[in-house]
Amino acid sequence: MDSITLTPIGIVHSPHKQPQGTPIQPCFAKGFEGEIEIFPAYAAGLKDVDGFSHLHVIFYFHRARGYELTATPYADAVPRGLFSIRSPRRPNPLGLSIVRVRGVEGNRLLVAEIDMLDGTPVLDLKPFNPAVDNRDDCRIGWMQNKLRADRPLTDDGRFAKK
Amino acid sequence: MDSITLTPIGIVHSPHKQPQGTPIQPCFAKGFEGEIEIFPAYAAGLKDVDGFSHLHVIFYFHRARGYELTATPYADAVPRGLFSIRSPRRPNPLGLSIVRVRGVEGNRLLVAEIDMLDGTPVLDLKPFNPAVDNRDDCRIGWMQNKLRADRPLTDDGRFAKK
Repeated sequence: MDSITLTPIGIVHSPHKQPQGTPIQPCFAKGFEGEIEIFPAYAAGLKDVDGFSHLHVIFYFHRARGYELTATPYADAVPRGLFSIRSPRRPNPLGLSIVRVRGVEGNRLLVAEIDMLDGTPVLDLKPFNPAVDNRDDCRIGWMQNKLRADRPLTDDGRFAKK
Repeated sequence: MDSITLTPIGIVHSPHKQPQGTPIQPCFAKGFEGEIEIFPAYAAGLKDVDGFSHLHVIFYFHRARGYELTATPYADAVPRGLFSIRSPRRPNPLGLSIVRVRGVEGNRLLVAEIDMLDGTPVLDLKPFNPAVDNRDDCRIGWMQNKLRADRPLTDDGRFAKK
């Protein structure tokens, strides 16, 4: 199938400068604030965004290199199928985070609970609506009783230093 | 910023052949079943996926053409900033759906609550975990009291025929 070419709409400014120590998800990133700078050509699209408390951010894992179709996730000790884990090393290294909106100032989207690395290229923003985006009564496979495991995650959900 | 090139990992087989009549979100797609055919080169990544009841699917809106930075969403009557709406016409036409997993058979992921068009290129699958992916106490801006509005949505949440 033909390849698809995308162009970033913005870039992340984040306190997380290296993968080590970066929270693996926004729910582990309380207290971390940052910005998404939307490039001027797209800034008019930020209208009405400040009415939402949360946004989906689809971004490019610019530091990820290569992938394996089974890999051992940070929260488990055995290899799992890649599409059952959230590793940044994927055939298409796309990331998905749900961030909290602090506000919009011109072309700057101020966010909290940020788990993205500084310099991350951003591809899309979508409004989060719990009526559409929440799910209950879920089965979570290998993650059951694992997501907050101590090994090799640190207690606070950041990537362990290895 | 440099462009990013992605390659689909699979393709959607869906009962939805045309945008008209297609549900706008999985929550409006009860009763619709389909498949995501994962190309053989990536099929080993489906291991463990059947342990999860729901997956995020990131896909390419292959039928979308162009975009405007403000646009009138289907659930409202006035133009809104593009990053506050879920229109398929976006600078990077990436879609995000949370589908229900029916099972995995070889390289075929059987899904329910499908809102994607037949032939949609799939870029990534990620496991859904409500502990990570749900949000409560949200503000939803212009969508408040609008998502199920009759105009121009039909009562059942599908795109109105125009």
